[in-house]
This record gives sequence, C-alpha cells and structure tokens, in this order.
Amino acid sequence: MNKLYVVGIGPGAYEKMTIEAANALKNSDVIIGYTVYVDLVKEHFSGKEFLTTPMKKEVDRCVMAFEEAMKGKTVSMICSGDAGVYGMSGLMYEIGVKYPEVELEIIPGVTAATGGAAVLGAPLIHDFCLISLSDLLTPWEKIEARLLNAAKADFVICLYNPSSKKRHDYLQKACDLMMQHQSPETVCGIVGNIGRDGEHMQVMTLKELRDTKVDMFTTVFIGNSQTMNIQGKMVTPRGYKNV
Amino acid sequence: MNKLYVVGIGPGAYEKMTIEAANALKNSDVIIGYTVYVDLVKEHFSGKEFLTTPMKKEVDRCVMAFEEAMKGKTVSMICSGDAGVYGMSGLMYEIGVKYPEVELEIIPGVTAATGGAAVLGAPLIHDFCLISLSDLLTPWEKIEARLLNAAKADFVICLYNPSSKKRHDYLQKACDLMMQHQSPETVCGIVGNIGRDGEHMQVMTLKELRDTKVDMFTTVFIGNSQTMNIQGKMVTPRGYKNV
Repeated sequence: MNKLYVVGIGPGAYEKMTIEAANALKNSDVIIGYTVYVDLVKEHFSGKEFLTTPMKKEVDRCVMAFEEAMKGKTVSMICSGDAGVYGMSGLMYEIGVKYPEVELEIIPGVTAATGGAAVLGAPLIHDFCLISLSDLLTPWEKIEARLLNAAKADFVICLYNPSSKKRHDYLQKACDLMMQHQSPETVCGIVGNIGRDGEHMQVMTLKELRDTKVDMFTTVFIGNSQTMNIQGKMVTPRGYKNV
Repeated sequence: MNKLYVVGIGPGAYEKMTIEAANALKNSDVIIGYTVYVDLVKEHFSGKEFLTTPMKKEVDRCVMAFEEAMKGKTVSMICSGDAGVYGMSGLMYEIGVKYPEVELEIIPGVTAATGGAAVLGAPLIHDFCLISLSDLLTPWEKIEARLLNAAKADFVICLYNPSSKKRHDYLQKACDLMMQHQSPETVCGIVGNIGRDGEHMQVMTLKELRDTKVDMFTTVFIGNSQTMNIQGKMVTPRGYKNV
C-alpha cells in the first residue's frame, strides 16, 4: 500500500519536532505543505522534492498529496503544530475515501497550546478548552456560546486565531464575554512566534488583555479562577483541594 | 544558574519524544520521575543517574529535583505526555519560589489528547475541551458542571483519567450527563496504551461508550454534533459551513 504521512512539525524550530516526525520526513520522497511551513523544514531535509500550495488551498493540497502517493512515492503532508488540531488530518480522511489504495498515518506534534504554555509557565495544568476565534467556517454565534459556557464552567481557555485584518476586534469581544463570568483580574497570557525567531510572551490581567493588540501568530491564554501570576509566569494549580 | 528541565516525554515510545526533549535528557546528569516513566526512557540514556518516587509523592519528587539542581547538577524532571497538561510543571513553579538560584525550562511534548487523536483519526480538528474525571483534587460538582457546559456548547470532549478502582462508574455518569445535550448516536472513541505495547483503539457511539469498561491507561474522545465515523476512523470536520 502507498504510504502517506500527515505530520505535525510542532511550533517551528526543528528541535521541537518529534523524532518520529523527523524520521517520516527523512523517509519521504515528497514533502508537501503550505509555503511557510515547507520553508521552516527545507534546510533539514535536503534532496527531497518539495511541493507547496498557498493558504486557503487546503483541498488542492490534500488532493496533490494523494495523487503523489498514487504515483508510488512516499509522501509527507506537513502541518505546523499538530496535524489534528485545526490541522489537515480531518480533511485528509474525508478526501481519502476516494483513494482506498493509500494508507494514511497521522504523526502527532506539539500544538501551539502546549508549546505556548511551556513559554508562559504552566497555564494548562487543569481542565481547559481550545477555541478558535476564526468565523470563516464556524458561525460567530457558535463561538460566542462556547466562550460563555467555557467561562461559566471555569475552564482555562486557549484561543487560536485570535485576530486577523478582518477580525481586528474579536479578541476584545471575546474578553467582554469572558468578563460576564470571570473576574477582570483573571490571570491571562499571550505568546507570539512560539518556537521561532522573535518569540515573546507577556502575562497580564483579563482587563488588560481586552485592550491588547495581537496578531495572527499569537496564542492567547485565559486562566481559571485559581490561576496565579508567580514571578511573571502564568501558573494554574492542579486542583481546587489542598492535598 | 543551575538548570532544571521539566520534560514531557510524550506518550511512551522513544520516537514520540521531541528532539529537544531527547537533547535535554542527553545533557542531564540526573533524570527524575515516577518509576513507570523512568523505566520507559532508561535504556535510551545510559550512564545517567536515575531517581524515582512512587505515585502521589509529587511534592517530594519536585523537592528532590530542586535539591539535586542545587548541588550543581543538570537535572531533568520527566512527565509522560506534556509536562504542562495535568503534569508537574505547575507544582514545579509553585515549589520553585523557594529556589531562586534554579532556572526552570519547560520542554513541551505530545499529550494523550493529540497522541490518541492521531490513532483514532482526526477527532480534535475543531474546538475541544480536556476534562479529567479524577475528583482527587477537584470537587465532582465542578467536573459535572464542566461536562454539562461542554456538551451544551457542542465541544468535542477528551476525557483524561476516565476510570480507576474507586471511580469505576465515572465514565458512565459522564456519558449520562452528555446525553442530556448530545445525541446517543454521537461518534466517540477510546484509545488505550497510546504509543506503547498493546496500543488499541475503538470507535463507537456515545450510547455504546456508556456501557464500555475502560482502565486508567485509556483516553476517551466524545465527538461534537458533526463528528463522523469514516471507515472506522473518528473524524471531526473543520467547521459548520461548507467552503
């Protein structure tokens, strides 16, 4: 059977990839991905054939990967972070129905939530939600209901895609919703360019986060009622009981 | 400054560790962890000093790590999965306040949610929650409220610690709560021994999950209203709009 790996390469730096992911890329004839991610790995895997498609051409990219595999080549489709978190692995299974000869193998990686958490301290130690603020494929009402329910149940919340040119005020809207249930003093944090050049982090309150400008390379963390600022790090305790 | 790494070693197999995690262990004089995890890495890092403490002795383990670092040794404290997801990194920051001479560095890893998702297919493609069913440190009422709010907002849900000897009926209770808001036909999945010998997975409905026995090495996935069973794999689409 023709083998097609769907590989999460982690936040960006080569060292943040798993050994298994690096091995899959080494064993591949062709490496396919969004231009930016292919550029991140290129120098470490010389001699491979690299194919890219621009952003928003995800379906074309998946079809390309299956077609290359059908030629008998070993193919890796790469995603930043983990391929299964807002990544390509779902679409690959959906499109894969038409290519029964190709065997998919998903190789997990470090997603922005855990990669960013490691930079901020330990914000995700207890129950948490991942929510994307992008309403490209999801109605805003659904996103709003998730934000409200997550705040009501005192989850730590990690926001992906907190901003874009068209959605410049979405983080502000999200913080206003949070403050219906959480204190404005809730400990929050942002991390930009996780595992890449220019990585930066900042710990702040929910009230301050509301008025902070972030870009699309930023991951946002909103603490639960127990989250603390310990010497500039964002730390959530393991539970609510002292043991 | 004395360096202390807190390292997520991933689900278990050596290859599922990041390159950065393997480098940290190679550069350490001492590797500390819960006995089971130390046994998983031992053969790959010969010549190191290994220290272990049993389960539930987490505070002792953290103090041990700081004390070793204070002797001038480079120390790695290892956790399975990611050190920041129900792991030790939070406690390390809390205890670290007493050891200002020791610099902590958290090295992220593949947690059971993303590691298990890769085995099941692509269940976590869209917004999801992680909830631990262990009420050792968290009141059950809080867990119950999280389950209900997560189901109400149509999150995909990943359950950690779904069962133990004392909590043999907790998964059943959780499924009954889910079914207040989600269809009994919701697509679910379980993965056992992720990335270790005896790895197994099964895709089923929420109704079937309710009557399934799982152990403490199992991670449970409950889909959202859109999650599909595609040829035996659990797959959540990227959104609610067709683009």
